[in-house]
Amino acid sequence: MSQEFLDALTAALPDAVFLGDDIPARFRADWSGLSPVMPLALVRPRDTAGVSRALSLCNEHRVSVVPQGGLTGLAGGARPIAGGVALSLDRMTGIEEIDPVMATMTVQAGTPLAVVQVAAAEAGLFFGVDLGARDSCSIGGNIATNAGGNRVIRYGMTRESVLGLEAVLADGTVVSSLNKMLKNNAGYDLKQLFIGSEGTLGVITRAVLRLQARPAAIDSAFCACPDFEAVLKLLQQARRRLGASLTSFEVMWPSFYDFMTGKLPQLRRPFDRNHGGYVLIEASGADATQNGALLSELLAAGIEEGWVADAVLPASERDARDLWAVRESVSEYGRVMGPLTAFDVGLPTVGTDGVVAEVEGECRRRWPDAIVLAYGHIGDSNLHLVINVPASGDDQPHDEIAALVYGLVGQAGGTISAEHGIGVMKKPYLALSRSPQELALMARVKKALDPNDILNTGKVAAFAELCP
Amino acid sequence: MSQEFLDALTAALPDAVFLGDDIPARFRADWSGLSPVMPLALVRPRDTAGVSRALSLCNEHRVSVVPQGGLTGLAGGARPIAGGVALSLDRMTGIEEIDPVMATMTVQAGTPLAVVQVAAAEAGLFFGVDLGARDSCSIGGNIATNAGGNRVIRYGMTRESVLGLEAVLADGTVVSSLNKMLKNNAGYDLKQLFIGSEGTLGVITRAVLRLQARPAAIDSAFCACPDFEAVLKLLQQARRRLGASLTSFEVMWPSFYDFMTGKLPQLRRPFDRNHGGYVLIEASGADATQNGALLSELLAAGIEEGWVADAVLPASERDARDLWAVRESVSEYGRVMGPLTAFDVGLPTVGTDGVVAEVEGECRRRWPDAIVLAYGHIGDSNLHLVINVPASGDDQPHDEIAALVYGLVGQAGGTISAEHGIGVMKKPYLALSRSPQELALMARVKKALDPNDILNTGKVAAFAELCP
Repeated sequence: MSQEFLDALTAALPDAVFLGDDIPARFRADWSGLSPVMPLALVRPRDTAGVSRALSLCNEHRVSVVPQGGLTGLAGGARPIAGGVALSLDRMTGIEEIDPVMATMTVQAGTPLAVVQVAAAEAGLFFGVDLGARDSCSIGGNIATNAGGNRVIRYGMTRESVLGLEAVLADGTVVSSLNKMLKNNAGYDLKQLFIGSEGTLGVITRAVLRLQARPAAIDSAFCACPDFEAVLKLLQQARRRLGASLTSFEVMWPSFYDFMTGKLPQLRRPFDRNHGGYVLIEASGADATQNGALLSELLAAGIEEGWVADAVLPASERDARDLWAVRESVSEYGRVMGPLTAFDVGLPTVGTDGVVAEVEGECRRRWPDAIVLAYGHIGDSNLHLVINVPASGDDQPHDEIAALVYGLVGQAGGTISAEHGIGVMKKPYLALSRSPQELALMARVKKALDPNDILNTGKVAAFAELCP
Repeated sequence: MSQEFLDALTAALPDAVFLGDDIPARFRADWSGLSPVMPLALVRPRDTAGVSRALSLCNEHRVSVVPQGGLTGLAGGARPIAGGVALSLDRMTGIEEIDPVMATMTVQAGTPLAVVQVAAAEAGLFFGVDLGARDSCSIGGNIATNAGGNRVIRYGMTRESVLGLEAVLADGTVVSSLNKMLKNNAGYDLKQLFIGSEGTLGVITRAVLRLQARPAAIDSAFCACPDFEAVLKLLQQARRRLGASLTSFEVMWPSFYDFMTGKLPQLRRPFDRNHGGYVLIEASGADATQNGALLSELLAAGIEEGWVADAVLPASERDARDLWAVRESVSEYGRVMGPLTAFDVGLPTVGTDGVVAEVEGECRRRWPDAIVLAYGHIGDSNLHLVINVPASGDDQPHDEIAALVYGLVGQAGGTISAEHGIGVMKKPYLALSRSPQELALMARVKKALDPNDILNTGKVAAFAELCP
């Protein structure tokens, strides 16, 4: 059977099918840290028709398909499946159109995010999605995982920047909904099915993106707050005083700030004293003078009323980069922390500090030397935690730590994934965030769109068990 | 069968079932203008459990259910079906929680939009959805139809203001996804299924809404442009210079402006001369001084560069209301125009003026005295057209006019409904805006969620034919 399938696949997609050692190593794993898997075949189609032929054959032969974008996912969603096909969109790149009046961009799925951002800027516009992997990740992957990132508080998740999609269903049907209009209520909004479903309902091949006005100025401030209650007060005041200009509200707990600035002496510590919490605020406005002035007024009010203890406004772009370097030092974890268990949970904002304290307390009780760092996009209710148990060396108790954290998050009404998605790594814990009724409904949708369960089989949820 | 069902329904929902003449007239029709229909029964549950019991019984007995909110829909989506149950959410009202830190509101589906708006304001926040029927329409109906309105360019359709939903499926299953977090990627985003599907996939009972920062100032300007090309230039410049402050961009063609100001002498005509197009701009900013200044600078640049011919900045709130009265005179159509055929189409923006000219030309060719008025939310690509043929009196050629307009819109790559939805009135034309593959996929989803086709049967699309 397998050889018959591979022959048919190779005949249907000449020059696009790779087998065995011809499959480059980078297609065998993603950034999740999970071990590489050799797929049955790698397919790299050049167009939507090729994707359709590949899926149609896989569906006919009941072969699993793992769609792959830039392979930067952290949850294992793009990791190949043994015996399945890896379907890479990496040859389908390019910007097809920018409409400056409608402020839209039509783009192929394999295009890197950074290329989209630059093209938008060159057209005098702006793309609202931004995240650290911008040079490697693809826009199709951003859409399939509903990527979050640094500016969600202002521009929303990737979902809100998508106006139209072209996707290929499991049976090879091409569904083209390349809508460019902000408003379109003609029947179901089908693109929503494919956004954030991690390749389990269809393969995204093309998208129409919503672009934004390019901000005239982007200003930052690094604030110290006496405690988490003051951080929340600062958030409310920033929202009120900056309005739509508030584009980032990044919080660092002292655990994170002290550890990273201690380990990395090149990082600038903007404050002499220790504080209860640290906040990076970014304001992006349509008027340069006004933008900085509103931010200064916010900080002045905070200092006067006591919810800001101290604040630094960078004097130059270089200064600003130095301040952001503290937050962005997360890319150095491997070097300063060793192996770790990382989380991107979401929590009702008011309860965040309590959950951080519970996680710290419970970790220290079980592993007295545990290092627990807390930080995140608190303006979006998104908390990141990274945990390392030095005594465990390379043999970190990942599963125990995950069960502990997800359990506390579930009890607090939070979500086990705010932005990275479920993939395979969080699948065992999905029921902590979603009810049996929700899981059953997901399975019904999965079954309707992919009755043979070939698309990213075994990812996100145990659909086959939920909807037998 | 029918009596057995009605007995069971009455027993399951005491005091909530109304039959025959006890069904108040207002539940027999919506604002579409279609003739009233007497349903088999009206059910007005007091809670989600009641909705669940009603749906479960209807599903068991294969009785159609028409969900009803404020009954302000213009497409016939809430009009009862003969032999079916009308399920009104009008007893399920009330705001359950406002979270000022997360800027969210949890609300029951029957709550009027205006009540949501006022409660948000009282909490120092702002709800982004606004439309003319605000006092009568319900938030559940706004969500079920993905309502648009006046501020979509800034805050998006209703979809973008919904964080969580509770909905009841056709079989009575309660799916509670009352998420409050801006970011949540734990599995499929199920609420998207219920938003904008016009009650065909489930009945919305509760919602978590995203609130916004309350603008410190709202300023308007009434602009005259030499032609449509200049209108588009003004749109691009407004987006660039006002950024996120741009909350409305409403265009009136001379056909609309001249007819309405001619018929209604109380309307102020802000300009002495005639112009090629008229635009109402609204800017809402976080700083009062800045907001007006940016708007003035935009207009000054437009006058200098020629894409604005003239402009009026109101000196007072009363002045502003007078200017908006021209746009809002649409509520007087019945009195000044008589019976009409109305449209809420969406079009690729650049081509809008061409379609308007084609519609005018073709109408005049067929009906030489035809009145065609054009206006709309052009910042959102949404064009409204109203057409009256005086010679036809009360017997307007609605179907011919609709076929003509939808045909031209379809050819131009537009949508037959930007904001009002499909309901029953636009159902015959849906295939002009959506491909066979899209329609088949909608039918697959419908079949998965409502296999007996009881929910708003026969609305939106001919699902039974599409997915037999």
